Amino acid sequence: MPNTPSKQSSSAGDWVFLDGEIVARDEAKISVNDRGFLFAHAAYEVTAVCNGKLIDFDLHMARLERTLAGIEVEMPTVDFAAIHAELINRNHLREGLVYVHVTAGDQGPRDYYGPEALTPLVYVAVTHKQLIGSVARDGLTAISYEDTRWRRRDLKTTQLLTQTLAYRAARRAGADTAILHEDGYVTEAASANLWLVDEHNTLITRDLSAALLPGITRGRLVALLGDDGLKIEERAFSLEEFQQAQEAFTSSTGVVIAPVLQLDGHTIGTGRPGPFTRKVQAAYYAYIGADLSGLDWL
Amino acid sequence: MPNTPSKQSSSAGDWVFLDGEIVARDEAKISVNDRGFLFAHAAYEVTAVCNGKLIDFDLHMARLERTLAGIEVEMPTVDFAAIHAELINRNHLREGLVYVHVTAGDQGPRDYYGPEALTPLVYVAVTHKQLIGSVARDGLTAISYEDTRWRRRDLKTTQLLTQTLAYRAARRAGADTAILHEDGYVTEAASANLWLVDEHNTLITRDLSAALLPGITRGRLVALLGDDGLKIEERAFSLEEFQQAQEAFTSSTGVVIAPVLQLDGHTIGTGRPGPFTRKVQAAYYAYIGADLSGLDWL
Repeated sequence: MPNTPSKQSSSAGDWVFLDGEIVARDEAKISVNDRGFLFAHAAYEVTAVCNGKLIDFDLHMARLERTLAGIEVEMPTVDFAAIHAELINRNHLREGLVYVHVTAGDQGPRDYYGPEALTPLVYVAVTHKQLIGSVARDGLTAISYEDTRWRRRDLKTTQLLTQTLAYRAARRAGADTAILHEDGYVTEAASANLWLVDEHNTLITRDLSAALLPGITRGRLVALLGDDGLKIEERAFSLEEFQQAQEAFTSSTGVVIAPVLQLDGHTIGTGRPGPFTRKVQAAYYAYIGADLSGLDWL
Repeated sequence: MPNTPSKQSSSAGDWVFLDGEIVARDEAKISVNDRGFLFAHAAYEVTAVCNGKLIDFDLHMARLERTLAGIEVEMPTVDFAAIHAELINRNHLREGLVYVHVTAGDQGPRDYYGPEALTPLVYVAVTHKQLIGSVARDGLTAISYEDTRWRRRDLKTTQLLTQTLAYRAARRAGADTAILHEDGYVTEAASANLWLVDEHNTLITRDLSAALLPGITRGRLVALLGDDGLKIEERAFSLEEFQQAQEAFTSSTGVVIAPVLQLDGHTIGTGRPGPFTRKVQAAYYAYIGADLSGLDWL
């Protein structure tokens, strides 16, 4: 059984926010005319909660606004901070994720154009989940997978078929995740940014462009680790370079920082989580205020 | 006001099919856990109805099955022919479109992988619409738009953001539709295949690959026009070649065959629908059994 992110124990919160109201999760339904459903005309964000506290919430909301601008949907006028607080409270969420999904709304029967001003629909849900779990400790195995996504990966939209198919291909191959690549270069993991440590002990992660998502955790690490005096290079790298790295890891909101130990069956580095990865984990866990007392592996 | 496909009078049928039942359109709701909603994990088809009769239904269903295989969803076991017949009947549909949307279903809270076997959700709706309307007679104007779609455009999925944004950009520019292009070559129009007539009176349309949708109307035209003795070449062409064509037109289920008269403000050919386009329209209209009596322009 692959050690997939989804295999870490998680459970959906009972209460969600949909279109202005808090409702029971099983009663949350959307119209078949919703443009998110019909055209993937929707943006989303996932923010981590640690000890009941949102991590880098403002950065997530800024990215949401940027994605919505890119798909021509107005930023909703709802109070996202209050909705997050309310759902954290109602669901007794101490640790886990808040998922925000904003679609271009139900604008009447299917029509590509829609009205000039698109009235958004907001859906928010939470997941109880241990942020620092067995994947952080034990690491991931990966397959390579061609990055077939659209060209605006800098926008966090619900066009997520490539990611879905990549994860499913990984599972079939007995691996945990997929390393996406195009034109000879790695872009991202299936739903995380990627990092490697080269032979000069430099941390390398791909530079930002439309080819990849500007991860909030990625950005936070660049800031934190730069302050820590670690050398960071932001540039594209190949699958081969990734595989020949001393160490490699992913960064994402949901799995935080996970060592990558294998690519297409070939061992990366020693095949065990390395000292740089542990240092990065320790720095980030300290930043989010995680309880490190049970983490004897760190 | 652009002479857009959506500007042709159309109205949604009152009854739809959703998840095993015929329900009123306004009561058709889907779960927020639906994988079509969350991941654009869904396929769709649109089949034309002329005189109450479905056009090339079997080809649409074969393409649906092919798309579903490509996104790892089982072909639903429902009787699509019976559902189509029932909705045509219940909605008194004489002329228009039947829209079929099959998602990877509600498989529980958001998780990229989902179970190995995905239970599909089926949604079917109809639109009353004149198939041969003012756009067929008067033609379309177009802008060029970079084709930012994912790499599997041969699969008819709901990852339709590029198409949506292209149509909206066209409308802002005062045009009707968009000609998508990448790497110097035209791929498709925003939701139609493209054809041009060159200076040797050859009909040219792009050859099939993962770069474009294998249009059912396109395929039918290749067969019909080949039988008619018209020369057809299937190959890629540039925006410049398209613009310098003698004539150009789109083919699609919804708008059938529409002359393209302008690209980025430059006139194509004479700027009026040409004799080849009219010949192609006449051949296809005869194929679908359309009533040509009112079409004095043909």
